[in-house]
Amino acid sequence: MSTREESVLARVALTWLAEPGTRSVHQLVDELGPVSALELLLDGGAPQQELRDSVAARGRAGDARAIAAEALGRGDRLAARVVIPGDDEWPPTVEHLRTLVIPDARSRVDRETAAPLCIWVRGPWPLAEVMERSVAVVGARAATAYGIHVATDLGYGLADREWTVVSGGAFGIDAAAHRGALNAGGPTVAVLACGVDRPYPMGNAALFDRIAETGLLVSEWPPGAEPLRPRFLIRNRVIAAGTRGTVLVEAAARSGATQTTRRAIALRRPTMVVPGPVTSAMSVGAHEILREEPASRLVTGLDQVLEELGRIGEFAPVPRGPERPTDTLDDDARAIVEAMPGRGTVDVEVLAARAGLPIRTVLRKLSLLEELVLVARRGQGYLLLSQAANPKPPRRE
Amino acid sequence: MSTREESVLARVALTWLAEPGTRSVHQLVDELGPVSALELLLDGGAPQQELRDSVAARGRAGDARAIAAEALGRGDRLAARVVIPGDDEWPPTVEHLRTLVIPDARSRVDRETAAPLCIWVRGPWPLAEVMERSVAVVGARAATAYGIHVATDLGYGLADREWTVVSGGAFGIDAAAHRGALNAGGPTVAVLACGVDRPYPMGNAALFDRIAETGLLVSEWPPGAEPLRPRFLIRNRVIAAGTRGTVLVEAAARSGATQTTRRAIALRRPTMVVPGPVTSAMSVGAHEILREEPASRLVTGLDQVLEELGRIGEFAPVPRGPERPTDTLDDDARAIVEAMPGRGTVDVEVLAARAGLPIRTVLRKLSLLEELVLVARRGQGYLLLSQAANPKPPRRE
Repeated sequence: MSTREESVLARVALTWLAEPGTRSVHQLVDELGPVSALELLLDGGAPQQELRDSVAARGRAGDARAIAAEALGRGDRLAARVVIPGDDEWPPTVEHLRTLVIPDARSRVDRETAAPLCIWVRGPWPLAEVMERSVAVVGARAATAYGIHVATDLGYGLADREWTVVSGGAFGIDAAAHRGALNAGGPTVAVLACGVDRPYPMGNAALFDRIAETGLLVSEWPPGAEPLRPRFLIRNRVIAAGTRGTVLVEAAARSGATQTTRRAIALRRPTMVVPGPVTSAMSVGAHEILREEPASRLVTGLDQVLEELGRIGEFAPVPRGPERPTDTLDDDARAIVEAMPGRGTVDVEVLAARAGLPIRTVLRKLSLLEELVLVARRGQGYLLLSQAANPKPPRRE
Repeated sequence: MSTREESVLARVALTWLAEPGTRSVHQLVDELGPVSALELLLDGGAPQQELRDSVAARGRAGDARAIAAEALGRGDRLAARVVIPGDDEWPPTVEHLRTLVIPDARSRVDRETAAPLCIWVRGPWPLAEVMERSVAVVGARAATAYGIHVATDLGYGLADREWTVVSGGAFGIDAAAHRGALNAGGPTVAVLACGVDRPYPMGNAALFDRIAETGLLVSEWPPGAEPLRPRFLIRNRVIAAGTRGTVLVEAAARSGATQTTRRAIALRRPTMVVPGPVTSAMSVGAHEILREEPASRLVTGLDQVLEELGRIGEFAPVPRGPERPTDTLDDDARAIVEAMPGRGTVDVEVLAARAGLPIRTVLRKLSLLEELVLVARRGQGYLLLSQAANPKPPRRE
């Protein structure tokens, strides 16, 4: 058995030897483990001629193990970590890529859709926990004001309802969805097609800084990796597989965003599409999906997205952490919980002022919260009980 | 056997005694014929108490036969005619209303959806012929600029492809669809909820004048009848049943236009919906249909509407008049046919100028038309042959 450290190094090296998603490499890792798989490849023993050739070509550019070690050192200095299968942080949903088969796949990117070998992560949250209850919001870079408006609203609303908004960090819809989520104070995840140390595009640098502080930047590629054109499409399968559902806001015909959406459909994830004016080139891709994919669902706003996400929940419960008792509260009750001090009691008047609610509403909701054993009356005031005290995932140390 | 004249009078009188669509009246006419059905009702012999009561109430307002005779006289003076089942002009598709059952029908208008007893017609075309290849384009009165643009374009395109555009003559989408069709020189049909002599709304008076000249104004109600509120919803079933498919352009939630659309779905007509911005109240009804009715189809423009209309064509060929050899021509060739004089020859130069096409194109298309035996060369000019001479249905004398 190899140590975790050896596995990490091997997986990083393998990702450098062949682009992520390469099925033959993934199979070898399944059979031999990453360390032996790497050895075999470096010894020129890949079973497929194509893979042997590409490994040989890459090998001429440098020593895979040395390059991986260097990347790991660089990651350490950046506080970027590598997550691999078996780690608590490994999001189990990406393994569903094993089942992904794109019908009539002609291009390499449609054939090579294996799960990631490793994921680089930058930011304060455990990856698996944040992705557990996550939605992809994707769309056009050249979005219209309409699309930006809708994506920002959705990002905000989803984060406000404690869904993690996942997108690709691009201009346009991606950035709007991330921003909306940030504005609601929720964690948001940008899945990049380059190293987490040099997120692309540079124009979104301030956004990436905010995401790295309060959400996650993630990538299959090591620090320093460049955002090569094909990588965006390779990356999209992780957005589709890592989330519980995908919402397409605006997309040109046959664009990257429609590709992600079709991946989500092929993975049988709830796939939602926001329509737009038929006169807008930026809605052509959205309408194309709605017309061509019977499994896609037209949605006009947050409520319908939540409904679709709830629907799968019923049939295929996704493994989740311990359920938070505050999950089922309505907005007013949650506002009250959030307005309560972590320690000590609070008066109803003060609570009403903090929560921005009428005293009558606060009293009604407090008796509900008492029944749920989330708060307790103490003398003239109310006390938050410990099980309600943690409505958001803990900040990682 | 009663004469056609007696039948017409009885059907007009019956429509006055009970609002169009009343199933019990329609059944009586099926069983007894209109003349005996009218006699029975006027003698207080209606089998249903409800119908007896309403006939009695109406009877106190006047003599049904005298009122019908007066309406017929008024129609004659207006050049408005009555069409009844058995007439060549009777559109067979409206009889499909016999099969229309609205699920969970709670309101009267959802229950009383029988076929019309008679249809008043004003305009130069035979009703059945014009409706044979017709599409309903319906939508909101308070349409947006976007909706108006789309409806006008669709109306134009459909008429240009020799589809009759049918709508309700209302402000907004209806008027835009009619106008688009008129601009393309096609006949358009306004199905009214009042007499064909006083089309409503008055603000569309100029539009109605143009429709009466080059298309048709039709109604179940006799000349002079007022556009009472419930009549719009009663009328909608005729728009849905009389056409081969329905396109909804913009609609508020649960509006008259969505009602027509749901009627079309219940009749299993191709039902097409144009999406719009989710931020627009005028697209809420359209998105509602797309989400709730699996049989509805999202369309983004003319080509997709034609494709849907073509699709049914394949499965259920609709009886048509003798095929016109000009049907298969492309736009340039048709422009040339239309630019040719009814008699005598024309020079290529003159023809090119009239058709607005380059001489080279005209020469190329003329050889095609010669091959199709639609035109012939005579000396220096070209002659239109008789089978091409009638590209549109004949004007009624």
